[in-house]
Amino acid sequence: MSFNFKGTQSEGELMPSTEANAFDIVVIKLDNGYNIGVDFYASRLRLIAKRKGKIAFPKAKIKQAETLPKVSVVYTGGTIGSRVDYKTGGVSTLQSPEELFYTVPELAGIARIEPQQLFNISSEDMTSAEWQKIAESVASKLNHGSRGVVITHGTDTMHFTAAALSFMLEGLNAPVVITGSQRSPDRGSSDAFMNLICSAHAAARSDVAEVSICMHSSSSDDRCALMRGTKTRKMHTSRRDAFKPINDSPIALIAQSGAIEYTGNSYRRVVREERRKIVPRAKFERRVALVKPYPGASPEIMEFYIGKGYRGMIIEGTGLGHTPVSTRDKEDSWLPAIKRAVSSGMVVGMTSQTLHGRVHPSVYKNLRLLSNAGVIYCEDMLPETAYVKLGWLLGNHTRDKAAEMLPKNLVGEIKGRSEYNDFGV
Amino acid sequence: MSFNFKGTQSEGELMPSTEANAFDIVVIKLDNGYNIGVDFYASRLRLIAKRKGKIAFPKAKIKQAETLPKVSVVYTGGTIGSRVDYKTGGVSTLQSPEELFYTVPELAGIARIEPQQLFNISSEDMTSAEWQKIAESVASKLNHGSRGVVITHGTDTMHFTAAALSFMLEGLNAPVVITGSQRSPDRGSSDAFMNLICSAHAAARSDVAEVSICMHSSSSDDRCALMRGTKTRKMHTSRRDAFKPINDSPIALIAQSGAIEYTGNSYRRVVREERRKIVPRAKFERRVALVKPYPGASPEIMEFYIGKGYRGMIIEGTGLGHTPVSTRDKEDSWLPAIKRAVSSGMVVGMTSQTLHGRVHPSVYKNLRLLSNAGVIYCEDMLPETAYVKLGWLLGNHTRDKAAEMLPKNLVGEIKGRSEYNDFGV
Repeated sequence: MSFNFKGTQSEGELMPSTEANAFDIVVIKLDNGYNIGVDFYASRLRLIAKRKGKIAFPKAKIKQAETLPKVSVVYTGGTIGSRVDYKTGGVSTLQSPEELFYTVPELAGIARIEPQQLFNISSEDMTSAEWQKIAESVASKLNHGSRGVVITHGTDTMHFTAAALSFMLEGLNAPVVITGSQRSPDRGSSDAFMNLICSAHAAARSDVAEVSICMHSSSSDDRCALMRGTKTRKMHTSRRDAFKPINDSPIALIAQSGAIEYTGNSYRRVVREERRKIVPRAKFERRVALVKPYPGASPEIMEFYIGKGYRGMIIEGTGLGHTPVSTRDKEDSWLPAIKRAVSSGMVVGMTSQTLHGRVHPSVYKNLRLLSNAGVIYCEDMLPETAYVKLGWLLGNHTRDKAAEMLPKNLVGEIKGRSEYNDFGV
Repeated sequence: MSFNFKGTQSEGELMPSTEANAFDIVVIKLDNGYNIGVDFYASRLRLIAKRKGKIAFPKAKIKQAETLPKVSVVYTGGTIGSRVDYKTGGVSTLQSPEELFYTVPELAGIARIEPQQLFNISSEDMTSAEWQKIAESVASKLNHGSRGVVITHGTDTMHFTAAALSFMLEGLNAPVVITGSQRSPDRGSSDAFMNLICSAHAAARSDVAEVSICMHSSSSDDRCALMRGTKTRKMHTSRRDAFKPINDSPIALIAQSGAIEYTGNSYRRVVREERRKIVPRAKFERRVALVKPYPGASPEIMEFYIGKGYRGMIIEGTGLGHTPVSTRDKEDSWLPAIKRAVSSGMVVGMTSQTLHGRVHPSVYKNLRLLSNAGVIYCEDMLPETAYVKLGWLLGNHTRDKAAEMLPKNLVGEIKGRSEYNDFGV
């Protein structure tokens, strides 16, 4: 395929179109392995030769310098761990290190990459069963000499998985970096390559001994943000910089060159001399619900969960942590149902649907009514993180211990003090 | 009470403390009617004289210039429409125009204010019954010569009420401005005064014929933002600039001086010659639910609502509009329940828990499965607005008409095209 790009005529190979890029953009793979997107009309495309048969990936094993740190890459699904199948036009997962280097050749200069396909599940279909498998896989990699681990993951529920691993990987002493892409790797505007490169830098060279999310920090391809797994949330359906820290700032900004700029936000550091074996604490109580009240929301929903024997519930309340309480129509009040839930032994935690800020159990009378009924106010914790934390606590501790630990900071999910700049995009 | 403020010794009257300001700050009312907060330790407080008996508000009727436009102020509750009762220390609602002017004397220079106490309900306890009463009251004010209406409201669910009034006040041809305060008027840092002044300017002089929210645009006391009622959301538990437009920008920025700066965002304008009577269309179907799936969320929650005879449901899905669909454990898939819901006649709409961005029914296979099952993708509409819209549609139209209108823009709740800057705080 010959085409006009920025005024000069170039050659490359036409990639199959997918729905995600089926506009006026055609994707062409250059000889150096990169894909670029060119405008169908402006680029004056011209066919040079038709390819016959199947494309073979380079068979030669790419040399990986023994002096570089070993970094495991665990694929779990999502668009980032995929490539276009040249024959079918569909997207299939990478199977070998050679394919990975073919897609992102820079990785060979950053670390000795050890890729593994764990499974191939869209992030909207992830459950705690997958979180447990990922936790076990990461622990095994770290226990067998990896300096850090990169996990590729679909973006929809990436922040749930990041929170789950934060709690499950107790005693973590290495960087565990989750990344993904908002646009598939066969699109010219894909964020997959830069996200993977920056994540490899974080796993190979940073001293952040936490589970973090590494994604574009802005919509341009300048730097990725390394963000705490328990305080990050997908805040846009499609932008490349969709992931934002909430009630927190990024831990670091990472450039493709490998420059890591720490922001001054505190984090747990890798302790070099400490090389303990990690045994994940990965049990999870599935009978936990996340419930969001709103004007007119029937408290019957609480009765439903009580009837099903649920052991925990996180309420994503309004404002400082409200549910309907003193409505004139008594049937609208959530207070009786909440009292019954607590009496049944359910642990009931409160967060806010404003996402930003901190719930408070006593500013207003209605808050005190809820607090006195036994609702546990979860400080500045995200509703999603509180849901994951409560399921994890009830899976691994007694009911009373879980209730005691829910509003206490364990791995950075609760900040003692809110910073002014934490309310920024 | 004598105190040191910014280096000079001043006098004022000690205000009763409330929980909201029970830190190191003491609130003092100055002779000009303003409250200021002073540091208990730094201000070297000194008692001059004890007040005896009850404080009387000035009895003299404040002159309101007949040349100014008439603006109705409808109190519904929340901290803004309140004052501290000097005798009990509690907060009580304002009862007369004199009290209002005592609190915010600037109002007399902006408009002929006609205040009315509609009810006194905390915003977390608001339901569609209150929305209907507010809509009827607003229509009545406008039909009886008011140039615009200001509604004071608690902040927790202000954006739900704003969305409801946007749909209920069909054919609106005047500014309807909802405001409130994040900090109670007896606190030195209260946003009540500036929010009320800017809202009065918007109601008296702007040409925005929409239901809007007028609150602090930043955490400093510079300007308020006038934001579309259907595209605004409370995004912080406690900051004064908690309200943010989502997938939209403010319509205007308003200074206390009355300077109105339109941002270039499009809006419906007041048509001067048109003076039609407004008849609110205020019915609301209460059997509508807002449901948010997450990893591990049981689809049984849908069966619960089907069993209760619900007629509508808005799903606050992940990413581009997902629920769990193709999980290995079939019991986790929401698809069969969604199919049953649609078969039962329920209107099922999809929005995103990322809040920012736009859902899409076809980028991924799982999205197509949901879309083919009859789920209606609601573009860039907020989940809260979609919930209110669906309840309103089902209350006033047939099931099929409601399904048809849900994804179509009626009053600015859906934007045809997303702007780059819509993803900002």
